[in-house]
Amino acid sequence: MNPVLAAGNEIEYRFCDGSANFTRSSYAEHMNSVLMMDQAIRAEEDGFDGVFLGCWNDPLWETREVLSIPVASVGEQSMLAAMAMGHRFAVVTVSRKTAIAIERDVLAYGFGERAIARPVRSISPESDGGLLMSAVTDPVREFIPRFEQAALTCIADGADVILVGCAYFGPLLRRVGYTHVADTGVPVVDSTTVAIKYLEAMIGIARTTSLTKSMGPTFKTPDRDKVERARQAVAGARTWF
Amino acid sequence: MNPVLAAGNEIEYRFCDGSANFTRSSYAEHMNSVLMMDQAIRAEEDGFDGVFLGCWNDPLWETREVLSIPVASVGEQSMLAAMAMGHRFAVVTVSRKTAIAIERDVLAYGFGERAIARPVRSISPESDGGLLMSAVTDPVREFIPRFEQAALTCIADGADVILVGCAYFGPLLRRVGYTHVADTGVPVVDSTTVAIKYLEAMIGIARTTSLTKSMGPTFKTPDRDKVERARQAVAGARTWF
Amino acid sequence: MNPVLAAGNEIEYRFCDGSANFTRSSYAEHMNSVLMMDQAIRAEEDGFDGVFLGCWNDPLWETREVLSIPVASVGEQSMLAAMAMGHRFAVVTVSRKTAIAIERDVLAYGFGERAIARPVRSISPESDGGLLMSAVTDPVREFIPRFEQAALTCIADGADVILVGCAYFGPLLRRVGYTHVADTGVPVVDSTTVAIKYLEAMIGIARTTSLTKSMGPTFKTPDRDKVERARQAVAGARTWF
Amino acid sequence: MNPVLAAGNEIEYRFCDGSANFTRSSYAEHMNSVLMMDQAIRAEEDGFDGVFLGCWNDPLWETREVLSIPVASVGEQSMLAAMAMGHRFAVVTVSRKTAIAIERDVLAYGFGERAIARPVRSISPESDGGLLMSAVTDPVREFIPRFEQAALTCIADGADVILVGCAYFGPLLRRVGYTHVADTGVPVVDSTTVAIKYLEAMIGIARTTSLTKSMGPTFKTPDRDKVERARQAVAGARTWF
Amino acid sequence: MNPVLAAGNEIEYRFCDGSANFTRSSYAEHMNSVLMMDQAIRAEEDGFDGVFLGCWNDPLWETREVLSIPVASVGEQSMLAAMAMGHRFAVVTVSRKTAIAIERDVLAYGFGERAIARPVRSISPESDGGLLMSAVTDPVREFIPRFEQAALTCIADGADVILVGCAYFGPLLRRVGYTHVADTGVPVVDSTTVAIKYLEAMIGIARTTSLTKSMGPTFKTPDRDKVERARQAVAGARTWF
Amino acid sequence: MNPVLAAGNEIEYRFCDGSANFTRSSYAEHMNSVLMMDQAIRAEEDGFDGVFLGCWNDPLWETREVLSIPVASVGEQSMLAAMAMGHRFAVVTVSRKTAIAIERDVLAYGFGERAIARPVRSISPESDGGLLMSAVTDPVREFIPRFEQAALTCIADGADVILVGCAYFGPLLRRVGYTHVADTGVPVVDSTTVAIKYLEAMIGIARTTSLTKSMGPTFKTPDRDKVERARQAVAGARTWF
Repeated sequence: MNPVLAAGNEIEYRFCDGSANFTRSSYAEHMNSVLMMDQAIRAEEDGFDGVFLGCWNDPLWETREVLSIPVASVGEQSMLAAMAMGHRFAVVTVSRKTAIAIERDVLAYGFGERAIARPVRSISPESDGGLLMSAVTDPVREFIPRFEQAALTCIADGADVILVGCAYFGPLLRRVGYTHVADTGVPVVDSTTVAIKYLEAMIGIARTTSLTKSMGPTFKTPDRDKVERARQAVAGARTWF
Repeated sequence: MNPVLAAGNEIEYRFCDGSANFTRSSYAEHMNSVLMMDQAIRAEEDGFDGVFLGCWNDPLWETREVLSIPVASVGEQSMLAAMAMGHRFAVVTVSRKTAIAIERDVLAYGFGERAIARPVRSISPESDGGLLMSAVTDPVREFIPRFEQAALTCIADGADVILVGCAYFGPLLRRVGYTHVADTGVPVVDSTTVAIKYLEAMIGIARTTSLTKSMGPTFKTPDRDKVERARQAVAGARTWF
Repeated sequence: MNPVLAAGNEIEYRFCDGSANFTRSSYAEHMNSVLMMDQAIRAEEDGFDGVFLGCWNDPLWETREVLSIPVASVGEQSMLAAMAMGHRFAVVTVSRKTAIAIERDVLAYGFGERAIARPVRSISPESDGGLLMSAVTDPVREFIPRFEQAALTCIADGADVILVGCAYFGPLLRRVGYTHVADTGVPVVDSTTVAIKYLEAMIGIARTTSLTKSMGPTFKTPDRDKVERARQAVAGARTWF
Repeated sequence: MNPVLAAGNEIEYRFCDGSANFTRSSYAEHMNSVLMMDQAIRAEEDGFDGVFLGCWNDPLWETREVLSIPVASVGEQSMLAAMAMGHRFAVVTVSRKTAIAIERDVLAYGFGERAIARPVRSISPESDGGLLMSAVTDPVREFIPRFEQAALTCIADGADVILVGCAYFGPLLRRVGYTHVADTGVPVVDSTTVAIKYLEAMIGIARTTSLTKSMGPTFKTPDRDKVERARQAVAGARTWF
Repeated sequence: MNPVLAAGNEIEYRFCDGSANFTRSSYAEHMNSVLMMDQAIRAEEDGFDGVFLGCWNDPLWETREVLSIPVASVGEQSMLAAMAMGHRFAVVTVSRKTAIAIERDVLAYGFGERAIARPVRSISPESDGGLLMSAVTDPVREFIPRFEQAALTCIADGADVILVGCAYFGPLLRRVGYTHVADTGVPVVDSTTVAIKYLEAMIGIARTTSLTKSMGPTFKTPDRDKVERARQAVAGARTWF
Repeated sequence: MNPVLAAGNEIEYRFCDGSANFTRSSYAEHMNSVLMMDQAIRAEEDGFDGVFLGCWNDPLWETREVLSIPVASVGEQSMLAAMAMGHRFAVVTVSRKTAIAIERDVLAYGFGERAIARPVRSISPESDGGLLMSAVTDPVREFIPRFEQAALTCIADGADVILVGCAYFGPLLRRVGYTHVADTGVPVVDSTTVAIKYLEAMIGIARTTSLTKSMGPTFKTPDRDKVERARQAVAGARTWF
């Protein structure tokens, strides 16, 4: 396979310090996001040029507000890319609950007009530990048929681009060469890879134009001491003990 | 003044265990929400019939998911009430950043068609500690003129109901009898009071019909041990230390 | 069953003085509305604290304009309640023509974003006199299966709350304990009951805050003599004779 | 002036049998509509080829349902024409209350995307009896300046076609040769005249193709005896006496 | 059959001077449009009162800008007519690619709210030369069954008016008396005929009121010499040789 | 200034073979597009990796259909970038007519929710030859003040990112260091530069994943001989001679 990153660029994988280990809940997602944002803050302190949030359940806008370097997510960037590839996209994901979280993003980002009705759909039966494991060694036997079944309903409803709604399964599918829904000409987009390429563009733009984000009211970076105070409020709450 | 609560009902005020003390940031709001949700979880454990999130910056949908009793917020309930009072509402709030957070809710709740364009507007200059203090003893001299100025631009753009976009200022305005924008017939709604009345209705519905919320995929209550694990993930993260 | 009304509250049932007896026509609905509004005007004159329009085919906004006391309808109030219970609601009703009238309300109220596509659906075959009668004694055998069939298509299209689109069938279903669509966690809401609880909240708000409705241009109460002149114009038209 | 009607066509003016005489109320408008529909029913019985509802406050969809001949209104037909003349239209009307009624139609007809924001605006001060009288003899001195003032705000907000939001003032303006808002190239459309031309087209289509309206569920003509029963219900209601 | 044109009106058929002969491509459609616009410009020079673009793939807005006489198209005018006939229309057309072009118009014209979801659908299998030929002599055996199959899915999704999405097949269907989708009351509209009747109305309006189109920024006629320069730029480009 | 292109990438500027030389007309734009598409087709034949349409008046979707390599435009790519930089963008352009063309794209791309109301605004007075020339040597004295005046109205209406709506002025502004609207924190984005960085990402994605565009019905590349036939139809039309 061709390398994903442009020559000279590197990614360092970092993991959250602890995890709710259960993303199929808005509450748990909110708690995980606290830990993701903390890693993002550290990454900026450590001098990285940009941050990539490697899960579709992400605190994108909050992280973008709090950092001064480009922040990309699997979700936002791959949806932007999808809109430059086709007319209407859909996201096929791994559970009904994940579908709900992603659909909320589609709406919040205002991308509904470029997505099909009910734009995020889950494979059925939903993914579980077994599927996750089996897909590493062989996504062809079990995962792809379930994925394709959901993708075909999306295409019947007007989708001409399918995003893989999982940062983890995307590269697995690409590795085995699964790039189009059978006989339809509709691409199956490894959203992780595509989103990383867009982050490179964002970093390039920051270098060339010095523009990273708007400093208008929505995304203006708050003072670092106020950010720290918010961190300490959660860290020090007696409620945890 | 007439009592707010129906005979036999009581409210117990509870405060977060610590606070980011700075809500004019999406990040800080996210952190405060962790603490608000924790209080909500405790309140249900302590046997309350319903929970009221007493700030417009709220984690409403996450809390509603995680609890089995009715959860109301100043924002959602007062907007529902506004839609039964007039044709198009607007929210006048205390800072541009708060306006952004509330506008995000207006969109997420899908209420944009019933609100004016740019439905949430801030007083100018924004509220600060001085205004906050002065408004307790005398909102008439400083706060109301600023509020009314913003409210009048909303009315010029089609609003016929104005919600006070702050859980704290609403009752203060009501106490001094400020109930309408001068000569317009447009009510200034103490959103806190109105929202509490709607929570009473929600609790009444739960009693009469046994229905509190949908147990479909968006709001299905996750298992309590998974909630606890998510709490512990944040509480135990070494990142804080 | 628990009582619907809060302690101390009472409902008086009043019927229209004559009826077009055929609501499956926009024209007939318009004519029936004349009679409903007339009863509402009388109710206010008789000193009631609020008016409940007990049919989904209702002249809500016209009645709200003409009265000074809170006016609720099965439709508006139950849809507001549904939006505080789930993510996207649907209404299952008794005929295709009723579905059209209710869908027009969903749009006029601007609630489309919180409802599914084609948000109002009819049981099939449509309700007729026989079904109406049989449902009083036994809704389980005939009515509920038809209802559930329509409800399941709504759920497949994303609904997580189902409103009973008929003021009459709602309480019948509640009485026999039919509260959820089989195995889905999706509540079947007796809209009549729920809407009455919301009317209680509206009356409570009017008492506590003195606010009933906006007196902006949409809902400003017209002078009573002009209302009376409009009544007399219809009453005295030679056209009827 | 050129004749409005095509050669061979004739209009017979008919007036309602009584009138609420006060259209600046939704309630009064509802009552007037009863009388308008009654005239429309008679006109069909008398053998006319089509019916024109000569006021922007109209019961268009109800009348279209109940008749089998083409039914046109000033509002719907002139808005259709406006969409074939320019990009975004606005309606300038004679009072704030009329503006509300017309805006409701713009939304119900789903024409919002082709109209400007707040698409219906009133002259200020509103029209009254004096203006009405003076405009018959001389609209230039008083009416046109007020009209143009409102029209210019519409143009500033993107309108490129202005409809006269009153069936009565439209022809008056045309008679004095007022056809464009000063120096803007934006036409001022006599909506009455334009709408009548569209009704001619509708009648022509009915003759050529035999198609008048859909007989699907929204507009299917109800049985005449049921219509008559609805008429009698209102006519015979003791409430009037 | 009744004559389509009003007494005294005549149509002259004119054909493009050359053709890409392949409309199932946006690129080819763009090239064909150059030739259609050229004919339209000539027609105005030749003194016609209006121009009718006789194909659903049309450069309507560009042609309307460049001419001073009324310009109608099968698409726009028949959709306007459909909105005065029913509640929600759909277009059934002859290929998936044509469907895409027409759907783009539905969106550009802002008519989406009055059309069903996925408002333009193709017969399947798509039309080809054989079907085209066979339909001239006998549309009943092959074409109508395919058409009706697509139309029925539209009706199931809420359509109550079906437009024939082809200027050519519309009159053929009308000639054999196919005017309604079986047993549904839903009209099948020969869009060509209907659109021509609307063009007559537009010409009538131009005669009576002297208004043809807005001269605001969207449709203001450019100077003829600039139009000619644009023509020459394409005509003289060495690229072609 | 930092280089725009990543190391190893090169741009070759190519110009249309002739020009309508007058883009302030939809008709002229359509004719120019013919020439732009022709250059794009040649560029692919000449082996380039991607095509950049260097003017906001562009035939993006038609060109994307007809080519097999990535096609970017100033408009689409800079709007995508804007949505990853702020909450709501606006485009400030050089004439009212250009504003209309760009606004049509905003709508066609479905980006309206992420842009302000009336999202594209022109400097006033409009740009002419003099301004164009003066801006090359000194945009500060004349162009920037006009630009900033328009930008400030956009910011007042909620914009937090401003795109320069002209491929030519964007780099000029960047060269003189004009990157933010005075004191607002709102970036002024040189859309040309940003869009080129996105094209690099698109080419990178094509290399890494082999995905360039959807081959679903909207963007499926037509056979080259059919494209050639369409070219010849225009080239050979006698109409030109």
